[in-house]
Amino acid sequence: MSDKKQVLVETSARHVHLSKSTLEALFGAGYQLTPKKELSQPGQYAAEERVDVVGPKKTLSGVAILGPVRPSDQVELSLTDARAIGVNAPIRESGDTAGGGSCILRGPKGEVELKEGVIAAKRHIHITPEAAKAYGLRDQQVVKVEVESGERSAIFGDVVVRVRDDFATAMHIDTDESNAAAIAPGTMGTVIAE
Amino acid sequence: MSDKKQVLVETSARHVHLSKSTLEALFGAGYQLTPKKELSQPGQYAAEERVDVVGPKKTLSGVAILGPVRPSDQVELSLTDARAIGVNAPIRESGDTAGGGSCILRGPKGEVELKEGVIAAKRHIHITPEAAKAYGLRDQQVVKVEVESGERSAIFGDVVVRVRDDFATAMHIDTDESNAAAIAPGTMGTVIAE
Repeated sequence: MSDKKQVLVETSARHVHLSKSTLEALFGAGYQLTPKKELSQPGQYAAEERVDVVGPKKTLSGVAILGPVRPSDQVELSLTDARAIGVNAPIRESGDTAGGGSCILRGPKGEVELKEGVIAAKRHIHITPEAAKAYGLRDQQVVKVEVESGERSAIFGDVVVRVRDDFATAMHIDTDESNAAAIAPGTMGTVIAE
Repeated sequence: MSDKKQVLVETSARHVHLSKSTLEALFGAGYQLTPKKELSQPGQYAAEERVDVVGPKKTLSGVAILGPVRPSDQVELSLTDARAIGVNAPIRESGDTAGGGSCILRGPKGEVELKEGVIAAKRHIHITPEAAKAYGLRDQQVVKVEVESGERSAIFGDVVVRVRDDFATAMHIDTDESNAAAIAPGTMGTVIAE
C-alpha cells in the first residue's frame, strides 16, 4: 500500500438544501421530495424537483435540490454563479449560513425570500473515523490537497477535514475549483497534512 | 528587498480576439474597434464593441472584444462558460487555437462560424526580460505560483512563463481559477520555480 493519503475528489455543482417549511411554500402543503439519485454521502440524494434561484441581476433556473430536508435553507453557489446573478456568497462550511447572502427561491407554488443562506462551500474532506485514523487526520484539521491533472495541477489549501461515522471518504470542491484544476471524474487527490 | 519572487495576479474574464475579416463580417466593411480601456499589457485594450458567443446550449451575450485585431480569431472562455454554452474549450496557450472548440460569433451586422478558436487559457506569467533575469526565470519555463487568500489559499501548478520586451509583469488566470482561490484585485502571488 502506498504511503500517500489519497482521497477521491468530487465536484459539487450548485444546489440547495431546503427546510420543510420552505419546501412546502415552494411546492405546496405536505409536499415531499422525490429521490432521483443517491449521492456519495449515505442517505443524501438529488431530488427530481428543481428550483429557481433568483438574484437581482439574473436567475439560475432549475437548480438541483438535495434531500432530505434540513433544519434550515442553504443555497450553495460557485463564486462564478454568485457574481452572475448578483448575490453575495461568503465562503463557509455547510450549515454556517448566518450572515450568508440573500436570494429568492422560486418554485411552482410560490416564492420564498432567503435573508441569509447563500454560501460558497468551503472546500472540505468528508472522512470516516477509521480512514481519519489511518491517515493521521482529526476533525476540523486544515490540510492541503494536491491534484495532478497534467494541464492545471494545483494544491488546494484551507481544506477542512470533517470526521463522521456516517460519511463516505471524499473531498468536495465546487465547480470553480474543479475547473481551476481541470478535474475529471474519478480524480484522486493527495492529502498534505502539515 | 524580499527574496520572494512576487507577481501581480490578474483575472481575465471571458473575451475574444478578432481578425480583421471577422471584425468586418460582424460589424461591417471597414469597421474599426473603439478603444475603451487600456489593459495592463502595453498596446492592448478592451473595446467599446461587444459580441455574442453562441454555443449549442446557450449564448453568452455581450462578451468583451480585446484589441487590436490579430491574425486569427480566438475566444477565451472559462471552463464554466464552455460547459454552460456547450462548447469544447481545450486548455491552451494564447495563439494555439488549432483543434480548439467551435462556436458562432454574432455581431450587429452578421455572424461568423469559428471552426476552431475556442480555448480556456493556460495560466501564465507575462514577464519582462529584466524581471525574468532578476527572478531567475526563462521563457516557457513551467512554475508554480502560491496565492494566500485566507479562505481559499492555493498553489497553481503548470504556470507557463512568457518573457517578452513588451510585456508588463503579471500572472494571468481565468475567472474559475480566480474564484477557486478567492482572489481579490491587487493580490500578489509568489513564484515557486523548481
